[in-house]
Amino acid sequence: MKAAQDLFSRSGFESASVSEICRLAGVSKGAFYHHFPSKQSVFMELLMEWLQGVDKALENFRTIQPEVPQSLIQMADILPEIIKTAEGRLPIFLEFWVHAARDPSLWKAAIAPYQKYKNFFIQMMGEGIAAGSISAADKETAAMAVMSLAIGLLLQGVVDPAGSDWTVIGRESIRVLTEGLTRRSK
Amino acid sequence: MKAAQDLFSRSGFESASVSEICRLAGVSKGAFYHHFPSKQSVFMELLMEWLQGVDKALENFRTIQPEVPQSLIQMADILPEIIKTAEGRLPIFLEFWVHAARDPSLWKAAIAPYQKYKNFFIQMMGEGIAAGSISAADKETAAMAVMSLAIGLLLQGVVDPAGSDWTVIGRESIRVLTEGLTRRSK
Repeated sequence: MKAAQDLFSRSGFESASVSEICRLAGVSKGAFYHHFPSKQSVFMELLMEWLQGVDKALENFRTIQPEVPQSLIQMADILPEIIKTAEGRLPIFLEFWVHAARDPSLWKAAIAPYQKYKNFFIQMMGEGIAAGSISAADKETAAMAVMSLAIGLLLQGVVDPAGSDWTVIGRESIRVLTEGLTRRSK
Repeated sequence: MKAAQDLFSRSGFESASVSEICRLAGVSKGAFYHHFPSKQSVFMELLMEWLQGVDKALENFRTIQPEVPQSLIQMADILPEIIKTAEGRLPIFLEFWVHAARDPSLWKAAIAPYQKYKNFFIQMMGEGIAAGSISAADKETAAMAVMSLAIGLLLQGVVDPAGSDWTVIGRESIRVLTEGLTRRSK
């Protein structure tokens, strides 16, 4: 996994070969295929491992702060950490998704984490709407607004880490969106 | 340009070669290099050509609707068109940016359109703040919130066009963010 990660970072997903991963890890191809059916599967394992931290942080914020608007605002604080962890990784993930978009057999696995976060936010927005703290057309639309903003922040933060102060921009953008989502008397 | 676009769409940016572009276009390498210094420069030309429509639409909305919040909301309506135009193109653009992120000589040119839109929205938010219709920490942060949301919407819309109704989600997300940005008596 370490050798694969290093090679993916250095030469990209498509250029990396199983032979080269094996050479770097000092293992045989037989040993490799004993653990992983394909190069794609090592990649998905690395992705899942990386996202475990994100999953835990999101769940924590939901548990600690049951009010949906406050919970959302606090989640902004994990953006800089995700951006930092993703540095040197997201280009590979992007490349992998671009690759997956051309390969239907990969597509379902590649999009699974995205679906998971989408469902996480749909449930969260549903709770907010039920509690009367979130106002939106429906929970799906509210969730997609949050997902879109988070994805845009992450993409820019990873592609252009020095271009802006992503801690401040993440916090303020999510505060503004949350304010737009918060039910209030007119 | 047409041959390059077809080849980029089919085999991706990195795999496409100048020789193959020339073969498809039925021109000599000499003729190619007479017009373009490199494969990258054909790509940047294609990108600029594609973005011309976006630029015009944004400028139109600003001219027609001087009120910044209303102008923003109307801009949501061009998202589906950008997504449709980008179909089969954005994967290549992503790949190009991933490639550019590893190549400092390409980076400045690759990020120029991004900087342009950032400046467009910084100016627009500055006008809104000056007119008292936009409330935000500052014009840069407000602009980055808009940019982030738009980028997230575009990325998802192009990667997963059938996953959601991007016309509805785009309009509603931008409405919500705009509501969060709109100054109001508390």
